[in-house]
Amino acid sequence: VDDALTLADVERLAADRLPRAALDYYASGADDEVTLRRNRAAFEARALYPRVLVDVARVDPSTTALGTPLPMPVLVAPTAFHRLAHPDGEAGTARGAGAAGVPMILSTLATMSVEEVAAAATGPLWFQLYIFKDRGATRALVDRVVAAGCRALVLTVDAPVIARRDRDARNGFSLPPELGLANLPAAGAATPAGERTHGGVAGVFADYLDPSVTWRDLDWLAAQTRLPIVLKGIHRADDAVRSVDHGARAIVVSNHGGRQLDGAVASLDALPPIAAAVDGRVELYVDGGVRRGTDVVKALALGARAVLLGRPILWGLAVGGDRGVARVLGMLREELERAMALCGAPTVAAIDRSLVG
Amino acid sequence: VDDALTLADVERLAADRLPRAALDYYASGADDEVTLRRNRAAFEARALYPRVLVDVARVDPSTTALGTPLPMPVLVAPTAFHRLAHPDGEAGTARGAGAAGVPMILSTLATMSVEEVAAAATGPLWFQLYIFKDRGATRALVDRVVAAGCRALVLTVDAPVIARRDRDARNGFSLPPELGLANLPAAGAATPAGERTHGGVAGVFADYLDPSVTWRDLDWLAAQTRLPIVLKGIHRADDAVRSVDHGARAIVVSNHGGRQLDGAVASLDALPPIAAAVDGRVELYVDGGVRRGTDVVKALALGARAVLLGRPILWGLAVGGDRGVARVLGMLREELERAMALCGAPTVAAIDRSLVG
Amino acid sequence: VDDALTLADVERLAADRLPRAALDYYASGADDEVTLRRNRAAFEARALYPRVLVDVARVDPSTTALGTPLPMPVLVAPTAFHRLAHPDGEAGTARGAGAAGVPMILSTLATMSVEEVAAAATGPLWFQLYIFKDRGATRALVDRVVAAGCRALVLTVDAPVIARRDRDARNGFSLPPELGLANLPAAGAATPAGERTHGGVAGVFADYLDPSVTWRDLDWLAAQTRLPIVLKGIHRADDAVRSVDHGARAIVVSNHGGRQLDGAVASLDALPPIAAAVDGRVELYVDGGVRRGTDVVKALALGARAVLLGRPILWGLAVGGDRGVARVLGMLREELERAMALCGAPTVAAIDRSLVG
Amino acid sequence: VDDALTLADVERLAADRLPRAALDYYASGADDEVTLRRNRAAFEARALYPRVLVDVARVDPSTTALGTPLPMPVLVAPTAFHRLAHPDGEAGTARGAGAAGVPMILSTLATMSVEEVAAAATGPLWFQLYIFKDRGATRALVDRVVAAGCRALVLTVDAPVIARRDRDARNGFSLPPELGLANLPAAGAATPAGERTHGGVAGVFADYLDPSVTWRDLDWLAAQTRLPIVLKGIHRADDAVRSVDHGARAIVVSNHGGRQLDGAVASLDALPPIAAAVDGRVELYVDGGVRRGTDVVKALALGARAVLLGRPILWGLAVGGDRGVARVLGMLREELERAMALCGAPTVAAIDRSLVG
Repeated sequence: VDDALTLADVERLAADRLPRAALDYYASGADDEVTLRRNRAAFEARALYPRVLVDVARVDPSTTALGTPLPMPVLVAPTAFHRLAHPDGEAGTARGAGAAGVPMILSTLATMSVEEVAAAATGPLWFQLYIFKDRGATRALVDRVVAAGCRALVLTVDAPVIARRDRDARNGFSLPPELGLANLPAAGAATPAGERTHGGVAGVFADYLDPSVTWRDLDWLAAQTRLPIVLKGIHRADDAVRSVDHGARAIVVSNHGGRQLDGAVASLDALPPIAAAVDGRVELYVDGGVRRGTDVVKALALGARAVLLGRPILWGLAVGGDRGVARVLGMLREELERAMALCGAPTVAAIDRSLVG
Repeated sequence: VDDALTLADVERLAADRLPRAALDYYASGADDEVTLRRNRAAFEARALYPRVLVDVARVDPSTTALGTPLPMPVLVAPTAFHRLAHPDGEAGTARGAGAAGVPMILSTLATMSVEEVAAAATGPLWFQLYIFKDRGATRALVDRVVAAGCRALVLTVDAPVIARRDRDARNGFSLPPELGLANLPAAGAATPAGERTHGGVAGVFADYLDPSVTWRDLDWLAAQTRLPIVLKGIHRADDAVRSVDHGARAIVVSNHGGRQLDGAVASLDALPPIAAAVDGRVELYVDGGVRRGTDVVKALALGARAVLLGRPILWGLAVGGDRGVARVLGMLREELERAMALCGAPTVAAIDRSLVG
Repeated sequence: VDDALTLADVERLAADRLPRAALDYYASGADDEVTLRRNRAAFEARALYPRVLVDVARVDPSTTALGTPLPMPVLVAPTAFHRLAHPDGEAGTARGAGAAGVPMILSTLATMSVEEVAAAATGPLWFQLYIFKDRGATRALVDRVVAAGCRALVLTVDAPVIARRDRDARNGFSLPPELGLANLPAAGAATPAGERTHGGVAGVFADYLDPSVTWRDLDWLAAQTRLPIVLKGIHRADDAVRSVDHGARAIVVSNHGGRQLDGAVASLDALPPIAAAVDGRVELYVDGGVRRGTDVVKALALGARAVLLGRPILWGLAVGGDRGVARVLGMLREELERAMALCGAPTVAAIDRSLVG
Repeated sequence: VDDALTLADVERLAADRLPRAALDYYASGADDEVTLRRNRAAFEARALYPRVLVDVARVDPSTTALGTPLPMPVLVAPTAFHRLAHPDGEAGTARGAGAAGVPMILSTLATMSVEEVAAAATGPLWFQLYIFKDRGATRALVDRVVAAGCRALVLTVDAPVIARRDRDARNGFSLPPELGLANLPAAGAATPAGERTHGGVAGVFADYLDPSVTWRDLDWLAAQTRLPIVLKGIHRADDAVRSVDHGARAIVVSNHGGRQLDGAVASLDALPPIAAAVDGRVELYVDGGVRRGTDVVKALALGARAVLLGRPILWGLAVGGDRGVARVLGMLREELERAMALCGAPTVAAIDRSLVG
């Protein structure tokens, strides 16, 4: 991973190392992968209009997200099943993110418990939540999350049901039985883990997740905890405004990395109307297709406060465990600083709408 | 066909099974197939803007078309020569459609008579009509259609003459002599069926179909029957308004699957101005390029009440007879329900214009 | 050529038969051939919006151009060096065009004299003219053209100098010495033909053609003859208006088949603003990329009265002499009639702006 | 190089001759080379609208740049390390440019001193400057530049830091130790040249160039010299206006040939808003992707007074030393004259906005 020059290099290294089914699970999108490609194309299509003759001797990409200091406007996106990528699993990711000072958003579908990951973590943790059919179990998980010291709850709202990812279906992908999902309600109970998770994530969705969740459930959730709530998976300005009205503190403009509704708008393209609609009342993050430092600049110029980095973290983990994760974040940071310097934007505050066309 | 995951899989299976000339007859478009490709590209180009936090525990894609209840907003498009695909021919298609609860629009150019198909059918039948040069024969066919219990007449208006499909011309495609066209006027008369249909569909057009048909003939047709009349092959808002004025009850925005006027606008792109012009006075359907559940959502968001599914039905028939047809419809339904859930649209009424960009 | 189904087929047949240098001379465009490709792409990009329920039992594509009756809105474009394609040369083309009833525009750079071609011609001839440095010689050629019975003068204005066609330069293309250019001023004089034309068309330009020609020379030319003058090679609305002001009777919106200024606008795209500007005061023709009957409909819908067909005529000539030319025109006519029927436009008058998007 | 027909031919010849690392150093762009491709695509996307019936018997592409007469609106762009391409280095380029009468903009990162190049030069020289961390050294270099007779200072402002060019990084590109950078401050001092430049241009940037340069430093520089100052690397209208306000005499709209901020707008696309904003108060030049005579016409039509030609000069130098450089400029001039003739623009003053769409 030390030889890697770009995140794309790390992806290639990971592709050599991971079994096909795991690689496809991480890499694939829903159906025809139109949105997966569209996410990336949206970043490439935008043009930058750099400023010149700005003092960039010191470039400072630091910012905050919900009060958490960030060394750069990047968060580790919640992704599932890290032990598929590396034996250290989410604990490795947490150590790597911590080494880079970047908060990690731990997934409900982690292969290690929030307690284990929190114990290993050297930096801030946030927690990605699904609302279970069993609200009591949901409440119990939130309590664990709070107890483990997580600082924010990221409620995923673009997955009321699971999409079909054709590659997984063709591969017959399922989570190996020895990898349990320690954050699911019955974790540690008598039901064998292997049985619960057969068929991969689809089984989890069918068994646990509640497709009937509405804005009222968001209100209920907000009443259970003092943690700030982030809604992940918003595509529309009206839903963004409604999020604000229901007390969400931040929004992740996201299409789940192209893994849920195929044909959904590219997340970068969905961002500007949402930024206009919320007008600064909540923080906006965006994910899906971030691969270069210039992508972060584009996202911020279009209204995001930070980006979430998903698959590249998994490539880094697969290739080098925590060191790989830290390396991926370090490479992105180096690229971002260079991009900011070349844009004449020595701070994130200097990244304004006029930088991108 | 049970292994097929997508309609594209069924197409590949059918391509392995069908003779080249039959495959090409079904698959091809007119001339350079620009419109054939454009139909599909139009669906891929549209972006979805899903709603979140909507209760989608129960997704109900049911609707109606001219009063006929539909389990989902899909009709089986009229297509010719089903016995080329499978010995069960249109009867097989009718059984498959019936198993899925989806109305079948039987083609005038069927290789089985409307009576035979009606006898086999387990679900509602509509009938696709051409107006013959011989109006008496046209009237006689309408009477047969009514007697057979069909519930609507779908008058094709984009084929005053037959286009050239270069693949058919190169293959020297003609209907095998043992396959008769039992709905044509002289069916059962002394003229041998093989003689009548040589040269494939071109001979039929030359011999029977009337290129002089105008709006007056539509008025004449309407006077012959109490069945609702649907006009299939409308591309323009002015023609759509005129259809309403002449008493059509529904319109299929269609370019005949790219098989008639090459260069014609993609049917999905033709839909919005027509929807604006008719403003709900008649039902609108669209066909051409529907291959995914999300395509159905896009069509409905842009103003259609239902889509017609053509070639995929033939692929299903070729691969598995009635079971193949039912499987294709079942796959599409499953995809549609998932797409509706992921769009936050649990009913077809919830699919509004804002879902698509 | 009888097996050919499309003009593209004839092109392939011609490519098998012609020597590489001749093929490239005909097929190539200037420089990087951007405009050559753009001409064709412009036709493919336009969408047709056909009318339905129009009586198309009789489709009549006939029209007139400058009073000359045309069986269809097509003229044979002026192209050089027909004896490169076939021993019958321009006489063969003239007979083929005449068989189809289509006027031929004979090129100044013909390998047969206007008198020879007129003698062979069975249909109307127009003559394409360059203004020579020697105005007297120009006048003399005009007199010959009139005497030979040509009905219009088509003055090419997009070639004040010759472009470089990289393929010709790489092939070292030159006209074989046995092929003379019998319409050039000194034709029949002592200078050997082979010497005059070495280096292909570039030598001709350098030796004869006048890069200083202006609108005043057009006035001069108009004073020499009562033949109607057509300006070929107009790309701009202001030049079109000026053409009208200087008494031109028609304009060919043309970029010389992509053979002169590479990067020039596609001729089809240049047409609508010109049509708006001249507002019917002169006839408009267009050439460059016409390969299908639907292309003719698109051109007429956008304001042309007729199209000029260039390279396909040469392919037909190469493959079958006069029969090949007639076959090409016959195929195009058949396609055009079908396209008009499918557009609900039984006459050229019915082809209006609304048919194309 | 005499066989070359186009600049692309010269590039191919150079690619055969240069070592891979040198070739990649010259050819590559930053990161994913999006802007590198975009520069070229922007030229290809523009359409020309030529005028006809203009006297183009004499085409005169001459103009001036900051009072320096130019035989055509072309300057030799500043590029680094010419001795990588040919032993004659920048002296060879200067002789070739002089033979064509085209001013050369000598790079600070030249492998020959400004004095050596000035001694060899047969035409006008301008000098490209970076402001060093050591302002005294900067002043000293400016004094040398003035003494050597350079007529303008071109201050590069799009490189406060060096971008990463992935190809160079993968090749481990560094300047061979025997090639010194004779214009750098310590040139001639004890520090061995090889040591100073290891790591290629990145080391130079880190060691010498000042990322803190702002508009005030421009004011400082302007106070040091009476040479006109040109700002190279402007992408935005606001920065262009500010350049005018700070006394710049000309602007090069440039993204450093796609070698600095990847994702930056194509320079040709950045030109029109800048031209509108400065409204003739300073001269505008553009570079990045010029390969054809028609590209020069497009640049001028969109507001440039001249273009800078970079990589093709290096290809010419690599293939034929000064003769190669002169040949490249001669080919471009020939193409430009032909393009102007075909556009009906016999002088650069006749190239107006209406020529390009």
